[in-house]
Amino acid sequence: MNTFRWGEPVALPAPVRDLLSAALGVTGPRPGAEPVLPEPAPLPAFPGLDVSPEARLRHATGMSTEDLLTARSGALPHAPDGVTRPASHDEVLDVLRIAAEHRIAVVPHGGRTSVVGGLRAVRDGYAGLVALDLSRLNRLLRLDRTSRTATFQAGVRGPRAEELLAAEGFTLGHFPQSFQYATLGGFAATRSSGQASAGYGRFDQMVVGLRAATGAGTLDLGRAPQSAAGPDLRQLMLGSEGAFGVLTELTLRIRPAREIRYAGWAFPSFDAGLRAVRALAQDGPTPAVVRLSDEVETAINAATGSGTDANGGCLAVVGHLGDADPAGRLASYGAEPLGDGPGRAWVAGRFRAPYLRDALLDAGALAETLETAAFWDRLPDTYAAVRDALAHTLDGAGTPPIVMCHVSHVYETGASLYFTVVAAQADDPVAQWRAAKAAAGAAIAASGATISHHHGVGRDHRPFYAREIGPAGVAALHAVKRALDPANVLNPGILLP
Amino acid sequence: MNTFRWGEPVALPAPVRDLLSAALGVTGPRPGAEPVLPEPAPLPAFPGLDVSPEARLRHATGMSTEDLLTARSGALPHAPDGVTRPASHDEVLDVLRIAAEHRIAVVPHGGRTSVVGGLRAVRDGYAGLVALDLSRLNRLLRLDRTSRTATFQAGVRGPRAEELLAAEGFTLGHFPQSFQYATLGGFAATRSSGQASAGYGRFDQMVVGLRAATGAGTLDLGRAPQSAAGPDLRQLMLGSEGAFGVLTELTLRIRPAREIRYAGWAFPSFDAGLRAVRALAQDGPTPAVVRLSDEVETAINAATGSGTDANGGCLAVVGHLGDADPAGRLASYGAEPLGDGPGRAWVAGRFRAPYLRDALLDAGALAETLETAAFWDRLPDTYAAVRDALAHTLDGAGTPPIVMCHVSHVYETGASLYFTVVAAQADDPVAQWRAAKAAAGAAIAASGATISHHHGVGRDHRPFYAREIGPAGVAALHAVKRALDPANVLNPGILLP
Repeated sequence: MNTFRWGEPVALPAPVRDLLSAALGVTGPRPGAEPVLPEPAPLPAFPGLDVSPEARLRHATGMSTEDLLTARSGALPHAPDGVTRPASHDEVLDVLRIAAEHRIAVVPHGGRTSVVGGLRAVRDGYAGLVALDLSRLNRLLRLDRTSRTATFQAGVRGPRAEELLAAEGFTLGHFPQSFQYATLGGFAATRSSGQASAGYGRFDQMVVGLRAATGAGTLDLGRAPQSAAGPDLRQLMLGSEGAFGVLTELTLRIRPAREIRYAGWAFPSFDAGLRAVRALAQDGPTPAVVRLSDEVETAINAATGSGTDANGGCLAVVGHLGDADPAGRLASYGAEPLGDGPGRAWVAGRFRAPYLRDALLDAGALAETLETAAFWDRLPDTYAAVRDALAHTLDGAGTPPIVMCHVSHVYETGASLYFTVVAAQADDPVAQWRAAKAAAGAAIAASGATISHHHGVGRDHRPFYAREIGPAGVAALHAVKRALDPANVLNPGILLP
Repeated sequence: MNTFRWGEPVALPAPVRDLLSAALGVTGPRPGAEPVLPEPAPLPAFPGLDVSPEARLRHATGMSTEDLLTARSGALPHAPDGVTRPASHDEVLDVLRIAAEHRIAVVPHGGRTSVVGGLRAVRDGYAGLVALDLSRLNRLLRLDRTSRTATFQAGVRGPRAEELLAAEGFTLGHFPQSFQYATLGGFAATRSSGQASAGYGRFDQMVVGLRAATGAGTLDLGRAPQSAAGPDLRQLMLGSEGAFGVLTELTLRIRPAREIRYAGWAFPSFDAGLRAVRALAQDGPTPAVVRLSDEVETAINAATGSGTDANGGCLAVVGHLGDADPAGRLASYGAEPLGDGPGRAWVAGRFRAPYLRDALLDAGALAETLETAAFWDRLPDTYAAVRDALAHTLDGAGTPPIVMCHVSHVYETGASLYFTVVAAQADDPVAQWRAAKAAAGAAIAASGATISHHHGVGRDHRPFYAREIGPAGVAALHAVKRALDPANVLNPGILLP
């Protein structure tokens, strides 16, 4: 990954450029500034400490649009004073001990793909801030063919994990958009969900065991597939985003590698598509991948060459494993087959959207995504409320947006909604997006949905998360934080209000 | 349910009586004593308070063999001073408030089917002890056909829940051995797992939302099927056994009611059976029910008329839904078909074992069960270690046992083991069983398995549970307890060391 970009630069297709200027009034890039590192605080002797400007720059931001816009404005307020690269679980414990002694804030770093400010830790009140880079914890420790589990160190990136497993004929089946960069520890700490979640489950459902370094010592959890021995503490560490401890090892359920077969389908409307994908999730055949775009996303993607027209309706790409072909059921719900072209196109571009965002930002557009999940009966209301909140807020700011949405994760009881917003950048694009995001979050909360299906909480979702779990829930989490991080040095300001 | 019995008395079949005397040296019942209630402490005005001896007797014990033996010896050391029957969530909050003010221990009661001492709360240091009976929280609040969820009050018993759902064409598919008496709240608080868990999942996997009354107020959790918004606090309340709060409402995933079709299979050995049921769990066709008895259990059940002979090997009863017939795969693993008789017999007697235990205790035998779960690669070692520990301990006490085992819950990565032990009662049968149970628990811990797959922690498993989650895990749970039960009145002595 390049610094302050998702990856190597890509060119905007001509139809996208035309759309930006014609439909959104984007007038081109505004001058930015070379980002400047703040003066570093001195750090104690952490394992593998690197205080070079290069290392500090590389660990200076996450990948939310706010992160990227802030860096482009020249500011790096969350850059660490240095980077520690422990080589073992015990060295991670050392990092936490040294940090507690010297009151240094510790920010665990996996792939740095957080899009919710998960790396924007608080510095105030700390003697310094160190990025805990897990990249040296990069080994497959054990593969158990009988139990179909694999124990990895937490710093292994997605492609490397799949490569190691493929050599043995296995896969995790976890392919989120951050796959190319993100780490297994990051997937677990943020409750990542991959594009094939319908078939392979969410990442949190793959974790059968974990090891974490905390301020209260080591947590080793998961002695069986399931247990009735008390609350499931694995589920307390999953989603804890480095605030309770540092995940150092994960034991994951693996499966034999199999091919996913894709087909494209046209629905007359988003509602019709929702009914059909709900039928698959509830009554099968269970799909592996479900991706249903609304009318706007379908039309924009088709017009800009990144998707397939769906006879003026909505495009769905559905993938399945083995002989669980959902074609018959989809057809019975009014879907028109579009062949395997849309699936091939989607697979080819499945990790491309964040690259395109960089190009959009370069071109002077605001481009950001947000997501939620709700029970099926609330999903249409949530969809309309979030879409309208985004449009209303950005219209009111004089930057009318394009708001697109798709369903990408389906369950028996509900589904996710993933929104993409593109508009012209206002004078202060960070403030512009914050207002739109706040309105969308309020709409999500009011409709009874969750503030995040797979992006996590980070800094950006803290107030909404606190509202979701209520004062008693917040009190429970604060109590856990005090127990496992008594020095309060772990990712301060993240997750908890 | 009768007092100090699982249900109405049943007669021991003649072959069982013969076996007890011939093989185990059981010489017949020894004199017991009529249980006597301790003098009650006065209680403040709890909602719907009942301090009658009848109510106190009915809430005096759980259903572990130790509970029953203690009551038969005349002692009821854990009987409450009275029973409060709140009629609403708010009245449950009132109970907790009044209890905190007056320092009264509160023991939530569902069906009282705990077999791990989950109702043996500590009295020391409290002004009194009240049983919080949830039987008035007995309504179906909402059925959402679109999302396939049902919201129940927590005091609804298993059969009533199925009756209410069946009227709408739905089922939970949750049929544990405690089904006839236990409540939905109890299923959730103890992480119950039903006999059809392979097809319908464990109870904790059915819970999409919950409401709990705590000492810090109300917890309302679950706004979506899945969420990346932080740690899953639902999973902190599931399995908390009344120590963190009182579950008052549950929103559960439901499914259309379908018939389960059963078949019996004979395997040449337990190991061969394990390989076959692992293949089903990992590669399908996914079964709904799997029940594989070891050689001893198969032989004893066949000899005593409660099971089918399996050509001298091991009996498996496998149930499936719809067209997911596992016959072909089972046959490919060396299983011989035994037709539908074994399945019919098993279904007819599926809730009978606890009744038979009463009759065995009446006859002077010790009869108890324990269970665990482990990953597949450790399962054979765990099986042998627990069996040997039970046999060795009871042999050494001069009461050689029959130790039987079956697998009743299978997962991709592992399975449960359920042991039944029958021996002659020693002079002090409670001490006799405690020694055997301690040896079995140590064997489970040493083999890396979990101390409970579906019975829970209660009093009996506390030290093993603490060892499983380690000091940091215990610290986290204690912190949650202090946050949600600051007066420390909720089920004291249960779950936490």
